[in-house]
Amino acid sequence: MPRVVRFHTVGAADVLQIDELPVPEATNDEVVIDVRAFGLNRAEIMFRRGEYPQYAPDLPSTLGYEASGTVRALGPGVTGLQVGDAVSTIPSFKMGRYWTYGEVARVPAHAVARFPARLSWVEATAIWMPYITAYGGLIEYGKLKAGEHVVIRAASSSVGIAAIQIARHIGAIPIAVTRDTSKLPFLQTQGPAHILTSDEGTLTSAIMAVTQGHGADMIFDPVSGPEVETLCRALAYQGRLFIYGRLNGAPTHFPVGLGLAKGITLRGFSLFEIVNFPDRFARVKAAVYAGLESGIYQPVIAEIFQLDDIVAAHRYMESNIQQGKIVIAV
Amino acid sequence: MPRVVRFHTVGAADVLQIDELPVPEATNDEVVIDVRAFGLNRAEIMFRRGEYPQYAPDLPSTLGYEASGTVRALGPGVTGLQVGDAVSTIPSFKMGRYWTYGEVARVPAHAVARFPARLSWVEATAIWMPYITAYGGLIEYGKLKAGEHVVIRAASSSVGIAAIQIARHIGAIPIAVTRDTSKLPFLQTQGPAHILTSDEGTLTSAIMAVTQGHGADMIFDPVSGPEVETLCRALAYQGRLFIYGRLNGAPTHFPVGLGLAKGITLRGFSLFEIVNFPDRFARVKAAVYAGLESGIYQPVIAEIFQLDDIVAAHRYMESNIQQGKIVIAV
Repeated sequence: MPRVVRFHTVGAADVLQIDELPVPEATNDEVVIDVRAFGLNRAEIMFRRGEYPQYAPDLPSTLGYEASGTVRALGPGVTGLQVGDAVSTIPSFKMGRYWTYGEVARVPAHAVARFPARLSWVEATAIWMPYITAYGGLIEYGKLKAGEHVVIRAASSSVGIAAIQIARHIGAIPIAVTRDTSKLPFLQTQGPAHILTSDEGTLTSAIMAVTQGHGADMIFDPVSGPEVETLCRALAYQGRLFIYGRLNGAPTHFPVGLGLAKGITLRGFSLFEIVNFPDRFARVKAAVYAGLESGIYQPVIAEIFQLDDIVAAHRYMESNIQQGKIVIAV
Repeated sequence: MPRVVRFHTVGAADVLQIDELPVPEATNDEVVIDVRAFGLNRAEIMFRRGEYPQYAPDLPSTLGYEASGTVRALGPGVTGLQVGDAVSTIPSFKMGRYWTYGEVARVPAHAVARFPARLSWVEATAIWMPYITAYGGLIEYGKLKAGEHVVIRAASSSVGIAAIQIARHIGAIPIAVTRDTSKLPFLQTQGPAHILTSDEGTLTSAIMAVTQGHGADMIFDPVSGPEVETLCRALAYQGRLFIYGRLNGAPTHFPVGLGLAKGITLRGFSLFEIVNFPDRFARVKAAVYAGLESGIYQPVIAEIFQLDDIVAAHRYMESNIQQGKIVIAV
């Protein structure tokens, strides 16, 4: 029987275990995939901990949003796919009911996409979550324009890397922020206009300096917490700060006086605001595919683990030392 | 010499005094107005207290944003106006350098507008701040649409009343919120779809009930403070909460988990985001004028004071018992 990662209780990385399960059936609009590789996301850490904002897991629970592989079985309602097709999955389903962590994955058909042939199986697990999140946040909702300054926190994450590439491509000015000076050489390879470190206590003034006093038109932030209020001081007039994660769980303040004076927007964002809307989904999927196919967008793989090392892989993601996507080769 | 209201130190209402000053000159693009009436705004309370978000007063300082009257003198650069024209002023200038509280006012020409003939001098002081703020927030930036639910806090304020009228006119569903049950009969005259009181500790569930569980698509709030986090729970998916004032100065939290799950927007807004942009300014001014001319928009006057009673008038505004605009007849 195929091996699938599950957790039987919420908690730290070591609640993950590998269970042998029957091959799932593909009913209705479902697709079963023989997995070649799967990618790790912070969403799964939150889900495993019982801290996922959208819903709690039904235990025991499968998990995972991203995988690449070949179609093994199709539900009777699926059209446009054939057994054997090389595909990867787009996070656009309820984790737990569907999953990608395992030798087989089951997902709804709308979450299955072909990927550009220039990408490897491993790379194909590292595209939809980061590029849809970054493109959806920056372009589709954030309306980032050429010439605007965008501050990208956690810039060496897979979403941060995607955000740098997308901002550069449209002629915006990406300002990469990292907490870790050891990541500066890697970030330089991504070509942001500026790289700033956030642990020096002078991030606001550094942003004002590199923007010649203008401030950031947009800040793209997976951290949240107390630093948001400070970062708002580095926003330009009508600047917008998009929060797409919660690496810091401490309370987040909105500075009302500054917000009124500068017309500041603070917004929570997730890729579900793309994938839940068919028009936006189709538009963003096409844009991301084109960027990947041309090589303008290029995913970065931090580390490749084996399936048996899933606990170590989750711990590695929690260490925050990775640069790019952590992938499991199956 | 004309009598003009000034304050020589920041503080409570009694710092306001009436000084006799020379008639101001109209230089460059300036207009001097013989004032018939002027309207009071909370912005002037904040400015008088030294708490205005945009800037601090240079002491002694004049104040005021809204007046009606006749043109007394024109700077050499002014076109399109004549001495004797009946006009009212649009808040779109630096208070202190310009003013409306007095027997004469001085403002820049772009802040001078004709008003529909059906309005009285008193009513003409009660139109631009409330209707530009409400129209600009709800329609221009908030993108409020027909069928959407909008919660209007401090609904019996002049901006709240304007917001109810504007929401009704476009076919949105205004939900008026007041802290004070004595204001319910007045609010009923404005015809919101629902009226809720905010002091009962059940505002969130009341909003969910009247929206049949959908939540508010938009909340328009001059209060801010701790209740914002609670109100966010009553927002619909992709709901937006616009803060346009700071009646409660306590810290305002952004609920990150909820913000991520529902794609919530929290935004500071002031009418300067309209008047600082010529295209938006022209569009909104025309829409407000048309609404006032047709009678679809109708300003509400809470109380008319005399110039000598300016301190009492400010105290009355701070009491929060008014329903509509407080005006000084000169």
